Parts: sequence; structure tokens; C-alpha cells
Amino acid sequence: MLAWLRKERSARMTESFLEDLFDELFPICRSIAGEGFRRSLAIFQRHMPLEIETVPTDTAVFDWTVPPEWSIRSATLTDPAGRVIADLAESTLSVVSYSEPVNHRLSLAALRPHLHSVPAHPDAIPYVTSYYKRTWGFCLPDRVLRALPEGEYHARIDSGFQQDGGVQFAQCVLLGDSPREILLTSYLCHPSLANNELSGPLVLLGLFDRISKWPRRRFTYRFLLNPETIGALCYLHRYADHLRDKLVSGIVLTCLGGPWEKLSYKMSRRGNSLADRVVQYLKNDEEYPIEIRPFDPTSGSDERQYCSPGFNLPVGQLARTVYGQYDGYHNSLDTKEFMRIPSLVDSIDGVEEILQALEAGSRFVNLKPYGEPQLGPRGLYPNVNSAITRTNSSDQLVDARTFLNRLLMVLSYCDGEHDMMEIARRCGCKLQALSQVVSKLEAAGLLAHRGD
Amino acid sequence: MLAWLRKERSARMTESFLEDLFDELFPICRSIAGEGFRRSLAIFQRHMPLEIETVPTDTAVFDWTVPPEWSIRSATLTDPAGRVIADLAESTLSVVSYSEPVNHRLSLAALRPHLHSVPAHPDAIPYVTSYYKRTWGFCLPDRVLRALPEGEYHARIDSGFQQDGGVQFAQCVLLGDSPREILLTSYLCHPSLANNELSGPLVLLGLFDRISKWPRRRFTYRFLLNPETIGALCYLHRYADHLRDKLVSGIVLTCLGGPWEKLSYKMSRRGNSLADRVVQYLKNDEEYPIEIRPFDPTSGSDERQYCSPGFNLPVGQLARTVYGQYDGYHNSLDTKEFMRIPSLVDSIDGVEEILQALEAGSRFVNLKPYGEPQLGPRGLYPNVNSAITRTNSSDQLVDARTFLNRLLMVLSYCDGEHDMMEIARRCGCKLQALSQVVSKLEAAGLLAHRGD
Amino acid sequence: MLAWLRKERSARMTESFLEDLFDELFPICRSIAGEGFRRSLAIFQRHMPLEIETVPTDTAVFDWTVPPEWSIRSATLTDPAGRVIADLAESTLSVVSYSEPVNHRLSLAALRPHLHSVPAHPDAIPYVTSYYKRTWGFCLPDRVLRALPEGEYHARIDSGFQQDGGVQFAQCVLLGDSPREILLTSYLCHPSLANNELSGPLVLLGLFDRISKWPRRRFTYRFLLNPETIGALCYLHRYADHLRDKLVSGIVLTCLGGPWEKLSYKMSRRGNSLADRVVQYLKNDEEYPIEIRPFDPTSGSDERQYCSPGFNLPVGQLARTVYGQYDGYHNSLDTKEFMRIPSLVDSIDGVEEILQALEAGSRFVNLKPYGEPQLGPRGLYPNVNSAITRTNSSDQLVDARTFLNRLLMVLSYCDGEHDMMEIARRCGCKLQALSQVVSKLEAAGLLAHRGD
Repeated sequence: MLAWLRKERSARMTESFLEDLFDELFPICRSIAGEGFRRSLAIFQRHMPLEIETVPTDTAVFDWTVPPEWSIRSATLTDPAGRVIADLAESTLSVVSYSEPVNHRLSLAALRPHLHSVPAHPDAIPYVTSYYKRTWGFCLPDRVLRALPEGEYHARIDSGFQQDGGVQFAQCVLLGDSPREILLTSYLCHPSLANNELSGPLVLLGLFDRISKWPRRRFTYRFLLNPETIGALCYLHRYADHLRDKLVSGIVLTCLGGPWEKLSYKMSRRGNSLADRVVQYLKNDEEYPIEIRPFDPTSGSDERQYCSPGFNLPVGQLARTVYGQYDGYHNSLDTKEFMRIPSLVDSIDGVEEILQALEAGSRFVNLKPYGEPQLGPRGLYPNVNSAITRTNSSDQLVDARTFLNRLLMVLSYCDGEHDMMEIARRCGCKLQALSQVVSKLEAAGLLAHRGD
Repeated sequence: MLAWLRKERSARMTESFLEDLFDELFPICRSIAGEGFRRSLAIFQRHMPLEIETVPTDTAVFDWTVPPEWSIRSATLTDPAGRVIADLAESTLSVVSYSEPVNHRLSLAALRPHLHSVPAHPDAIPYVTSYYKRTWGFCLPDRVLRALPEGEYHARIDSGFQQDGGVQFAQCVLLGDSPREILLTSYLCHPSLANNELSGPLVLLGLFDRISKWPRRRFTYRFLLNPETIGALCYLHRYADHLRDKLVSGIVLTCLGGPWEKLSYKMSRRGNSLADRVVQYLKNDEEYPIEIRPFDPTSGSDERQYCSPGFNLPVGQLARTVYGQYDGYHNSLDTKEFMRIPSLVDSIDGVEEILQALEAGSRFVNLKPYGEPQLGPRGLYPNVNSAITRTNSSDQLVDARTFLNRLLMVLSYCDGEHDMMEIARRCGCKLQALSQVVSKLEAAGLLAHRGD
Repeated sequence: MLAWLRKERSARMTESFLEDLFDELFPICRSIAGEGFRRSLAIFQRHMPLEIETVPTDTAVFDWTVPPEWSIRSATLTDPAGRVIADLAESTLSVVSYSEPVNHRLSLAALRPHLHSVPAHPDAIPYVTSYYKRTWGFCLPDRVLRALPEGEYHARIDSGFQQDGGVQFAQCVLLGDSPREILLTSYLCHPSLANNELSGPLVLLGLFDRISKWPRRRFTYRFLLNPETIGALCYLHRYADHLRDKLVSGIVLTCLGGPWEKLSYKMSRRGNSLADRVVQYLKNDEEYPIEIRPFDPTSGSDERQYCSPGFNLPVGQLARTVYGQYDGYHNSLDTKEFMRIPSLVDSIDGVEEILQALEAGSRFVNLKPYGEPQLGPRGLYPNVNSAITRTNSSDQLVDARTFLNRLLMVLSYCDGEHDMMEIARRCGCKLQALSQVVSKLEAAGLLAHRGD
């Protein structure tokens, strides 16, 4: 598992630290805009220097309009016998997100269109939203729904819409040698769901901590949290030009907990971003355990917005236990027990390894490209020819020859077109083996990182 | 056989209508320029709004010079016993096309170089021409030629050359949504030969009739009749710039009758024209019964001129019973009985299907390419998320999900680079399935045909 | 072996002529700059109109500095018993090339770092150089070295460095129809080594003689001799712009004698130079016996400089018994008996064949690309159509049809993009078969060589 790439782990990003954070975040009734989202961002701000921006309600954002903020104080559904059968206080999933305020007494027949369940999982409460069309509703286990008696029900939702707020996103940056950027992003609008989606934001935080401690960053790293879809669109509304100019690769982080063992990468629409190439290289050439999914505009997360044809930005997605492919997807079975905190630490490790391979595998340029540079005076070549050309079985000389061959290969192919992964393939070695060569050549002033 | 693409057939283009037309055209002694060609064009003009242009004799056309018109009134070859053994009045093939006038009495030895037959088919009269070198000759069955007695023969050809005419071509256009054009063309210079070449002009007429009745044409369709080779060169002399600017794909129609069951498409020299891609797609992805031949400059028809390296226009060719590959090729065995009128109707059906796939399979563009457009308010997405994401075995919801996936795929890949065939491949569905999606998106103002 | 390409061989380039030349060159103590190199060049100047240029000592050449010239008059190593155990007069390999002058009496322990041998071949004297770091040393058989007694040794080297000379290279040109050039080059800095490297310069001379006698040269041929590495860098210092502008393909000639049967071509870094394509074509399509090695910057000769990423010129390399892969590489086992003079003649034959295929296989352009040119009046097409289209089993007509097909194929694909090898593949014939077609079309003014 690329052990060579691992730096010492941050003491702070322990399982217990992440679990405390999780436990604080899980009960909050988040949605795409409003108090729940604000409170959640504030918790992350304690550990990352996030700067928050607000795109005001009613702003036209491409084909969309920024919705009002939604506030919810209480929501209960009472049956004819006076029993509360759905209650926001018991589960944030009990009320349809963005429900309008109601205080209705109504028959079961009139109520039915406002009730949602998951027939396939009769004990689960589904996660239902209606952001852009005013309605209201309750979510409850199918087992309860099927047993409802006739009679008068009482639906009470104490909610409201605020026109003076807006959609928020929050970002921070870790500068690197190059202004060219890697974007890491996740979304924070889901209420009490664990794998989808507290895992993504928590892994994002873990990565911020890790990358902040790297001895050197070749790229600049940008960290972004937003509500899904409308948040990514608001971000693009303000930062698309910046991303077009600076973005090397972006990765949407989602569903990074759960029982699946391997990380799973969804390619960018372009299919040739640096991250796309790195993941393919790791899987195919270094037998790194990772699944690869093709780009697909029909499901997923914010990469759908970044990769829409007008932007077509180099943004992929990393997941572990993939959305839509587990029983608890979008319902109350998606718990901490399912997600598992140790699984998040595994994901932080894995994504960090990928990012380090991305730094090591990118493009460099030979600074003395006209003829071979003179290696002898730089201590990179024996001054007497026989030491290197003579047949010799000593390991040291074999190693010296191998090292020199790799060095010559790096100098030859670091022309701004070939990346270090292609050179590793030509050398028949791993990226790690080239890192030593790169260091020596950088120190000798013969090589420089190109920035993508 | 792409039944979904078929519209109701024109009542007018019945077999009996085509047969009447065939019977009127067959006996005319056509050549590349002159009265026979004029009369034949006039017959087509009754059913298509053809506009005729003349390129005058002696005009320099690229490497060629426009020949004079040729007129022929009678031609007879009489044997020593006074029997007429070749007579234009009995077969238009009896005299070498563009024979100069003669009235010679000559020995069999002197006559022999002027006699032509087909040894492999001893009862057939061959089709022989000599447009650019003045000579004369008679064509007759090899069985007759071999039995000719010694003695004095009388060769009489009452022909003439007119310098004040020229080479003619005739065209008409059916406008479509886009000014970008599909060219359909055939040649009309062969005398009494059926498959090669009355089938091509008759299928062209049938297609004009069909396409004129389509409820919608995305492309503009151009229909062209000319004499082979010199006619295409004259056309290019006047319209090459127009074609370079407007032509999406051209198809030369030839040998479209006869016993072979499948249509056979010859690729354009480019190998990537829209028609090239459509035919390959139909054959490979939809198992449409069609043969594909590579481009070949050594045989064929006017595509050789359109595809010459200076023009390299995207022009392919459609045939059925292919030239050079049947006994009657270029001789009197190429009759109506061999060609068969029903075979022409089959060809009209088949070419129409290909053209409709060409309309459906071309490029479209997403008019809201920045982020995903908001589908809910347009009735293209359920406003409540659970309706579409919930696991559900009802056919209707499965269909709704499939429809939505295709719609998202179309929006994502209609970027001006991918054509609808590539999108159908990605969707794992046929073009037909995408047509519904395209209609909905066009109606919603989210998609437009790009014109090629 | 492409017998059709062979012209009559030069009487002068006989084995005995080459052997005399070899015997004169072999004993000279050559190095990268100095008297030995000058004398060797003068010998080649007798047979080729070489023009010599000198790049002065201390000139900065890319990352390098031109070294002083080295002169050596005598060098002896005497053992404690007064026996001379290494003597320049007996082998030019006995002294490390560019040894500084010494006159030391020293113990075996002090001497040891200055002694070089080849443990794997105990009777061989190795070839050792130290051009850019001042040192001195002797080379001797390992069998001798291992048996050296303790005691006082006497090392005498009477050498010197001249600052008023420089590095020399020598070139001459055979003009062709096109100013576009083929570069043939070898290096002449090795002292008494046969395969590596007197074979390359002698084959270069043989090729000059052959090519000078070709009835026609489509390309201009440039012949270059220089010291390895620094000589190529000096040449690039002065001629890189010229090569960028004019060079079609270059070939470094090295190790062209010895027992291996086939020539072995090392691809240029680009991998698509004309020579790269020709060699691949000959091997794959005409089953020509040749090995192909990929480009490799870690070993080889001056192609490493020409192909460095700043230049990336289309330069490959031809060898036979490849450097580093035979026992005598860089030691005194590399003798005339190993190299064999007849092997040089074989190499001259083989390289000449490749160069002739390179002429025949390059790009031509159709001068009448708009439509097909009118072939009849040019005698390239029968005026009466039936002669060529009629089914006929006579060999002559079959040949005429084949010839016409090839002619049409050449006209169609000579568009400046396709080379003649691609056309031969499409025709299913060898390059030889197209040469006749090309001649006829050139004579008719329909085709011209494009120059690369």
C-alpha cells in the first residue's frame, strides 16, 4: 500500500477525535441552506481556516435560482389515537426537507400523498427532499405506514423560509510550490446520515491536517465544503474562471466509510486528468488496490456540475462504499455503526497516498535539454568510463548503473510532455524509485517541477 | 430493419409508376452529352424540380476539356450477304458511344479492330465508349463475331458532333432546418442498361419523393443527376466551393437493383463522414443488414472525383448488386428482368432508413451546458427526490429512471464533439430510444441540432 | 534482400581496399581531440571531400566546455624487476586516454588506483578514458594485474594538453533533387578498437562511394565524422538550426562489423522519422531481415545528443554486432579478426538498401489533385473502355489492370500525408512494384517527390 509514501500520521486525526466530531455533527438537521448548515460549518471552522461566502437567495446561478433558507423548529404527525408517529425530535429524517409550515387535521386518504417510506426496508425512515417545489411531508418506516388506521390525523410542521440569507460554501487553501491547484471537496447538506454524507467532510478535514504537515507541497491544495448541487453551482458561479485557469485535478469526496475494502475512483469526464492518470497508473502498474468507475453523468455528486459540458473541468470522485449500492443509502440505516470511524481513517490514508503519487507522478522538465548535461562534475557520473561500463557483478555497481539509467531516462523524457508515471513505466520501476532520482536532479539544478 | 424510422410510403412511388418510367427511359440512346441525355433529364423533370446547367463544349475543367455533344441517327453493319448484323435500331449498345460518322465498305480484316464482343458471354452485346479519342465501332455478340465470313462489309454510322452544346447536369434542393447539406447523386449517361445505370436515377427520384414528405428535415438535401465522371467534374468546377462549405455527407447511388439482398456502402476516402459513421454504427451496433466496402480509387463511380485528393469531400457510395461483379455488367444482359423493379423499392426503403438514421445520429448541442439544467420545473425530473432514487420494481419507475439517465447522458455528451451514435453506445440503447429524449429536450429548449 | 534495389557495386570499395584502410587506421592512438584524430581524418579525406571545422578549446557548448587537445608520445609502466608491463608502443589501449604526464616511482598500493583491467576477460586490455577530470592510469590484462609483486613501480607518461587547438568534425555533402537531408554519421575517437569504432567510419566511407554513384538522389546526403559525444555536441552547437530546418532522418553508424548476421536499427526518440518508418516497413511488410531496438537514452552513441529533448531530431542508429553485447566491447579483444572486413561490405550493402527504400518510400504529391487526371491522352489508360474493364484472362491485360489500379492508388493517396509505404500496403505490393508507377507518373508530369 505505497508504504514509502506514508509520512508520520497526525496525532490529532485519531479515531476518537473523529468520533467526537461525528457525534456532534450527526444530530443536526442540515439542509442546503439555513441554520443546520451554518452550525455544521462552524464546527469544521474550529479545525480548518474556512472562509465562508454566501450567494444570496434569488440570485440566478446558471439555469438555477438560489432558494431561500429553510428553518425548522418542530414537526410531528399524530394518529387518530393521539400517538405521535413521526417526530423531528426523534429523527431529522422524519420531515421532508424544505417542508412548508402546516397545521392540518386530515383523513388518512388526504394524508397519504404526504407520507414516504422504503418498502424494501420496512424499518427504515427514508431521506426525502423537495427544495424547489413547495410541499410538505413526513417520512416513516414502511411497517408503521402500512398499519395506519383510518381516522383523523394531525400534521404539524413549524418551519419557515428566509429570503434574506442564501446558499453558503466554505473554503481554505494550503499553498504549494506551484499556483496550480488540486481541489478537494465534499458536501455537508445531508441531515442525520453517516456514510452519505458525514464521511466526506470528515475525510476532507483529515486530509487538510495531513497535507498541512507535508514537508513540501508541489501543488496548491484547495478544500471546499458546500451543499450538494446548488452549492457546487454557486461555487462555479464565482470561481469557474479561477478553476479553468488553475485547476490541475479535483476530487469530490463522498461515501468514504462503510464496509467496502477498496477505494473506488470515478473518472473525470475528460478521462485524462492528472488524478485520472494517477489512479489508473497505481491500479495497473503498481497493483494498488482501487476500483475505477467510468465517468457517468447519471449519478454521483458534485462532479456532475464540475464536469458539465460547458465547464468540463478535470474533477473526479473518490468513494468507498458507493452511494446507491448499500441498503442504508438515503435512509436511517446509514448510521455510524454502518459507516465505522476506522473506515474513515483508512480512507484518509488512502486518499493521502493517491495525492502523494499525484505529486510524484506529475510532469517535470529537464532544465538542460540541449544535449546530455555533463554529469561527471555534478557527481552523477563516474569520471572514469570503465567504472560504469565494465561488466561487474557487485551489487553496488549494478545499483549505480540502474540509478544512472533512470537518471538518463528522466532527463530524456522530462520534456513537458511525458509525466513521471510514463517514465516509471519506461524504466520498469515504481514511482518511488524515481523519487530519489528526481531529488538528485532537482538538487543539481537539472530538473524542475512543471506544475501539472 | 429500423421499422420505427419508416414513415408511410408514398403512394406515387409504386412499382408500376417506377416501371412505366423505366420503360420510357430504357430505349433512349444516352451518352455523356447530347440529345439522349437531354430527353432523359426531361423525363425526370416531370417529377422533380430539376434545374439544368450546361458547361459549354471546350471548357477546361481541371485536367479535362468538355467534349462536344454527340448525335446519332442510325448505325448499321451489313455483312457480305447483305444481312444487317448490328443495328442501332435494335440495340443502343450496337454502336460504340461517340463513334464518328462513317460510310465504309471494307474487308473483314480491316473491320475487325472496330468490332467488340464479350467472349465470356457469347450472346451479350458489350457496352463500349470512346469519348476522348475519335474512332468508330460496332458491338455484337461474340457468337456472331466468331462466325463472320470473309468478304466486303458495309459500315454506316450517321452520327455527328455539336460544338455549340456542352455537358449538362441537373439538380434540385429540399431545404431543411440547417443549411448544411446531404448530397444524393446518380448518373444518367448509360444507354440501355438497367441496373447500371437506370437504378440509381430511379432510386434518387424515389428518395426525393420520400424526403419531400418527411415532417421535418434537419439537413438540407440536394439531388443531382449528371453524366458520369465528366459530369461530376463539371459539377465540381462550379460547386466545389459550395460543397466544401456546406456538405455534411454525399452518397453516389449506383447499381441499386438486382438480386443481391443487402445494400453495400463504399466508404468515403476520409472514412469518417457522417454517412460513414452512420453505416458503421448501423451495421456494428444495430445489426442492420448492410455490407461495407473500403474506399477504393480504382473502381466505382463519381465518388472517385469527389474524393480525389484535391477535394477529398465526404462522399461515399451506395449500391446493391455491385458493378463488375455480375455477368451483365456493361453488356446487354443488364436488363429489367435482372434489375427487377421491386428491388428498386427495397433500395429506396433502405436508403431512406439510412438517411433517417443520419438525421437522428448526428450532433446536437446542450443549450444550457453550465452545470446541469434544472429539470424539475420543466417536468423532466420528479420534484420529490425519492420518487426516482427509491428502489422500486414497478416498470413505470424503472422506465422513468432509464429515461432520465438517457436524458442526462444526452445533456452531458451533446457538447458538439460527440454525435448521437456515440451517446447511444454509451447508453447501451438504439438511436430510436434517444429520439424521444431528443424531442423532449428540444421542446424544453435545452437541446438543438448542430447541423452536422 | 531487396535485390531489385541493388546497383552495381563500386569496384573501389572492395574488401582489400577497406582492409588497407583499416590497417592504416587501427594503430593510431586516437582520442577526442589531438594529433591522432587529425591524422585519422586526413586518411578519410583522401577518399571523401571532407571539410574540417574546429571548435576551440574552452568554448562553452551547451552544458559542456570544449577540452584541450591531448598529445601522447610514450607511456610505460615498469615493475620492481625492471620489466615493462604496460607500454603505449605495444597497445594504444595501455594508457588511460587523456592521462596527464607523470614520472612517478611508487609502491603497488599507491599504484593500484591507477590500474585498470577486465576481470571477466583476464587476457584483455580495457579501453579507459578520463576526458574531463585530470588523472592518469594504465590498462593491462587482469592476469598480469593479479600477479603483480610488491615493490617499487615506475610510471612514466609523456603526454601534454594544448589549449590552442580544439574539437574537430568533418563533413561533406552529396546534393540531391531536394535540399531536405539525410544525415549519415559516425565517430572516430576510439583508438585501436575495430568493431567499435572503425567499422562505422569505414561503412560511412563505403556509403559515400555508393551514393555518389546513384543515377539519381531524391534527398541530399550529409556525411559527418566526429569524436563521440563532445563532437556531436560541437556539431549541434553550429548546425542545430540547419538540422532543424533540413533534416529528414539521420542515422548514426556504429559497430557495423562482427559476427551478428542482421543489421539492428535503434529507433529515433520520435519514433516516426522516415528512417524509423522505413525500417519498420521493411521488417514487417517485406520481411527484410533486420532487428529493431526501441529508443533508449541510457546507452548508444551520438543519437543520444541529437535526440536529447531540446533537439529531439529524427536520428536513429544502425549497428550489427551491438556495443555492450560482445566480449570484446571496449577492450583489446575487439580486433579485425572479430570485426571481419567482409562484414563491413555486408553492412554497406544493407544500409544502402535501406537508404534506397527510404528514397522510394517517402512522400510524393499528385500535381493534378482536382478530380482524376485524364489518363488516356497521356497513354496511361486505354481510350476504349472495354479493353480494361472486360473480363479477360490474358496475363497482359491482368497486368495492365493491376498497373492501372496501382497508378490510381498512387494518385489518390499522394496527397502529402501518405507516404509510399502506406500506399504499397494498400496496394498489397512491395515498394519495387510502385517504383515503375512512380516513374511513369513523374514522366507524365502528374507526380513529384515532396522532399520528405
